[in-house]
Amino acid sequence: MSPARSPVLALSLGEPAGIGPDIALMAWLGRVELSLPPFFITGDAACLRQRAQHLGLDVPVQECTPSEAVGVFAHSLPVVPAGPIVTALPGKPDASSGPAARLAIDAAVALTQSGEAAAIVTNPISKAVLYADGFSFPGHTEYLAYLTGDASLRPVMMIWSPLLAVIPATIHVPIADVPRLLTHDLLVETGRIAARDLTERFGLPNPRLAFCGLNPHAGEEGTLGREDEDITRPAVETLRREGIDARGPFPADTLFHAAARAKYDVAIGAYHDQVLVPVKTLAFDSGVNVTLGLPFVRTSPDHGTAFNIAGTGTANPASLIEAIRLARRLADHGDGS
Amino acid sequence: MSPARSPVLALSLGEPAGIGPDIALMAWLGRVELSLPPFFITGDAACLRQRAQHLGLDVPVQECTPSEAVGVFAHSLPVVPAGPIVTALPGKPDASSGPAARLAIDAAVALTQSGEAAAIVTNPISKAVLYADGFSFPGHTEYLAYLTGDASLRPVMMIWSPLLAVIPATIHVPIADVPRLLTHDLLVETGRIAARDLTERFGLPNPRLAFCGLNPHAGEEGTLGREDEDITRPAVETLRREGIDARGPFPADTLFHAAARAKYDVAIGAYHDQVLVPVKTLAFDSGVNVTLGLPFVRTSPDHGTAFNIAGTGTANPASLIEAIRLARRLADHGDGS
Repeated sequence: MSPARSPVLALSLGEPAGIGPDIALMAWLGRVELSLPPFFITGDAACLRQRAQHLGLDVPVQECTPSEAVGVFAHSLPVVPAGPIVTALPGKPDASSGPAARLAIDAAVALTQSGEAAAIVTNPISKAVLYADGFSFPGHTEYLAYLTGDASLRPVMMIWSPLLAVIPATIHVPIADVPRLLTHDLLVETGRIAARDLTERFGLPNPRLAFCGLNPHAGEEGTLGREDEDITRPAVETLRREGIDARGPFPADTLFHAAARAKYDVAIGAYHDQVLVPVKTLAFDSGVNVTLGLPFVRTSPDHGTAFNIAGTGTANPASLIEAIRLARRLADHGDGS
Repeated sequence: MSPARSPVLALSLGEPAGIGPDIALMAWLGRVELSLPPFFITGDAACLRQRAQHLGLDVPVQECTPSEAVGVFAHSLPVVPAGPIVTALPGKPDASSGPAARLAIDAAVALTQSGEAAAIVTNPISKAVLYADGFSFPGHTEYLAYLTGDASLRPVMMIWSPLLAVIPATIHVPIADVPRLLTHDLLVETGRIAARDLTERFGLPNPRLAFCGLNPHAGEEGTLGREDEDITRPAVETLRREGIDARGPFPADTLFHAAARAKYDVAIGAYHDQVLVPVKTLAFDSGVNVTLGLPFVRTSPDHGTAFNIAGTGTANPASLIEAIRLARRLADHGDGS
């Protein structure tokens, strides 16, 4: 069976003390109304049963194998067991949190790579909790790349929403470091990966990439900083010579209104806030984090563990729901290999 | 007569080869439908007559004094003569452009300061044209401050729209310079001027100021750059000790969705794109540039001269119309002195 044909998605439990279990239960409850594709959880079934009880949600939870999951999904939330018994309570991570979160990811990736799941959707993890547990990766994305065993992979984070898709070329670094980190090679590699995955996974035959200038007004021809002329423009030209429809650098402030957005498929920003600001302004609840450049499809809700509201019933499952939908769409389109 | 009571606004011609004349004519044509307050143009009446003819707009243009302007406004576009005869054509600035643009500003400011106009609305100018003419100010705003003769003034640019008002603490500088330029004093001065003018001109008794962190996630407690802890947070605390409702630093990416915007009156960003991106994403056509910290009310459309569409009839007067409305509102609220 081709991995792309698998009828089910693997959803990792995430940090068990966070809102991951809450939103997974809520998404399953809405499966018919929202026409959600089948998914199973990798993790501890008892944790999910307890959370359902805690929240007063009528969600039967059933352990099963991946191949049984589609049948189970109709009447119960399918769980493929992974990781330790969770002792953490809502909002209160404990020593079981780190292993539970990590081993759920490991299982979801293994099942996706074996073709038993079509794609992986990851619930939020707590980096602080995982670091305390000995985890040494900058985040989810880098850990997923590590699990593939291919050291040459360069994962690229895209935030996708129906209104706007964006990629920050640099991510969690101080603004003072951005001018130094923004290199020709970084922009070209990011553009190549974006173009390839938008073609292969999103089905865009000739994706249009709009690059933001680093400086205000894209540097006004170099008078407000040289980087846009010396780094970004040559990177765009390199990509164009490779046949990729790269454009820019454009002034970021006029790139995100509706008429401007109609002219490109993804905006590639120089730094985090330049592109995370507009996508979260336009699609705060429904943005999806998609990792490009991996050998499998991975999506994630675009928010954190939200310890402060875990187990309260106020978590919003909208971003997870969009992540589930997008994972299915991408898996169905791509070859999954 | 108190300046605040003047029944008419002064609208400077702007760069005559740009879209300023086009949008001024269009705004006057819509005066009844849009319930616009009366305004007169400072500049060359013949330039406006020619543009109206060129565009096929039925706009009688009449030279008058400021005190006659309200009566004229009902049937003709009132023009208080200022500056040279314009020889520039749409899209083609010439030697008459610089003096025409500058002397129109001078006249509008003088009439506002004398109380013959309630406030000044400025049409776009071309810095390149003015620089070639010997102009040495970074922009409109600094020139207006210079014209007051008060060297202690520090004008502050705010972009206002019904959905969001923002102030960039640094503006037209390279991103690489922002960390050095972002000082405690700059943020405190900016916050004080914003708080004072939002109270005195916008009528907010206790304006709420939300400061953006410089770094992604507002620096995550210093792990992604120290500036937010070492500079922005102490500046916010200084303002709070002065009784100003300053808050932050907040992660910028989660500060601009509707629920977040409801919690403050103005967002103060560390740099240009951080706050110009969201306001232009949300209100591309209707944002208004307001200068705070001046002894008079000044607004401006939030766009440039658009030489490429001047005289074509495709310019959008929406931002000028909002600028006219806001100038009237602010002049009526404040004491105008």
